[in-house]
Amino acid sequence: MGAGKPIEIHPSRADEREAIGAAARSTGVFTPEELDTVFELFDAYRDDPDSGYRFLTAAVDGTVAGFACYGPTSLTEGAFDFYWLTTDASIQKHGVGRALDLAVEREVRREGGRLIVIWTSGTDAYIPAVRFYERMGYIHEGCIHGFYRPGDDLLIFVKYLLPE
Amino acid sequence: MGAGKPIEIHPSRADEREAIGAAARSTGVFTPEELDTVFELFDAYRDDPDSGYRFLTAAVDGTVAGFACYGPTSLTEGAFDFYWLTTDASIQKHGVGRALDLAVEREVRREGGRLIVIWTSGTDAYIPAVRFYERMGYIHEGCIHGFYRPGDDLLIFVKYLLPE
Repeated sequence: MGAGKPIEIHPSRADEREAIGAAARSTGVFTPEELDTVFELFDAYRDDPDSGYRFLTAAVDGTVAGFACYGPTSLTEGAFDFYWLTTDASIQKHGVGRALDLAVEREVRREGGRLIVIWTSGTDAYIPAVRFYERMGYIHEGCIHGFYRPGDDLLIFVKYLLPE
Repeated sequence: MGAGKPIEIHPSRADEREAIGAAARSTGVFTPEELDTVFELFDAYRDDPDSGYRFLTAAVDGTVAGFACYGPTSLTEGAFDFYWLTTDASIQKHGVGRALDLAVEREVRREGGRLIVIWTSGTDAYIPAVRFYERMGYIHEGCIHGFYRPGDDLLIFVKYLLPE
C-alpha cells in the first residue's frame, strides 16, 4: 500500500474482524493472549451496543490499514481508555496512526470525554509507539515497574483534552 | 467495638455480604455506583471460583470490622489489583486496615504475586487512606489529573513484594 493515498476512517464493520486481527498480528507485539483479547473486545463491540468498546477502522484503497479500540473508563465521568492503536506492518509511517489518534480524539470529545488514557508496555518493542504517543500530545503520567512480568513495565500516557 | 481485641482474618463468607456493604457505606467515601460495584464483585467472588476476585473479612468479636477485595490483574504475570481496603467507621485506628493489608500481602505472595497496585482517588476524603498506604510500604507511582471527574485525580500506589 502506498504513501500519500487518502486514509479513510469509519466505525469498524463486522466483516473487518479478521483483517483487524491480521493487522494486530502483523505488528509482532501482541502476545497470543492479547490477540484473543482483541477478538473478545471486537465481538463485544459487534454484538452489544452497550459493551463500552468502540472500534475505528482506517482504510487505504478499501483495505484495512489499521484500527483503534477505545471506550469510556468505568467509574469515571469523562475518562476514556485507549486500548489499542494498531497500524498494519505493511503500511507503517504513512500517517495511519496519526489519523486514527485524531479520529479517536474527535469521537471522545463528541461523547463529552475530557481525557484519553493509554496503558502500555515499556519494553523495547513499544519504544516507537511511546515516541508516537509523545508526538501526539500524550503526557507520561506514571510507571509501574515489572507490571506485566519481570522487566516489563506499565507506562501510563494521558492526553488531556482542553476545550476547543 | 473496642481497642486491643484480636482481629481475625478469613476468606469472606456468603452470609457476610450485607455486613461488607454496610462497612463500605459506613466510610462515607463510596459513591452509590461504587457501592453497586462492591456487591457486584462480591457476588462474582461468591458464585464463581474463577471470577478473579478475592474477599477477606476482618472480624472483631465475631462481627465484620472491615474487608479487603483484591485479585490478579488480567494480562499480567504476578500483578494484583487491590480494589478496596475498608474498615468500618465504628472501629477506625485499631489496626484492622493494617491486619487486612498484611493478610492481602501474604495471600498475594502465596499465589506468586510480585506487586500489589492500588488505584485510588486523590480527593481530600482519601488523604487518610493515602497516608495509610504510604505507611504500609506503597510507593506513589503515578497520577492522572481529573481522572474520575474534574478535580478528582487517580493516584496509583504500588507495593513491590521483594522475595522474603
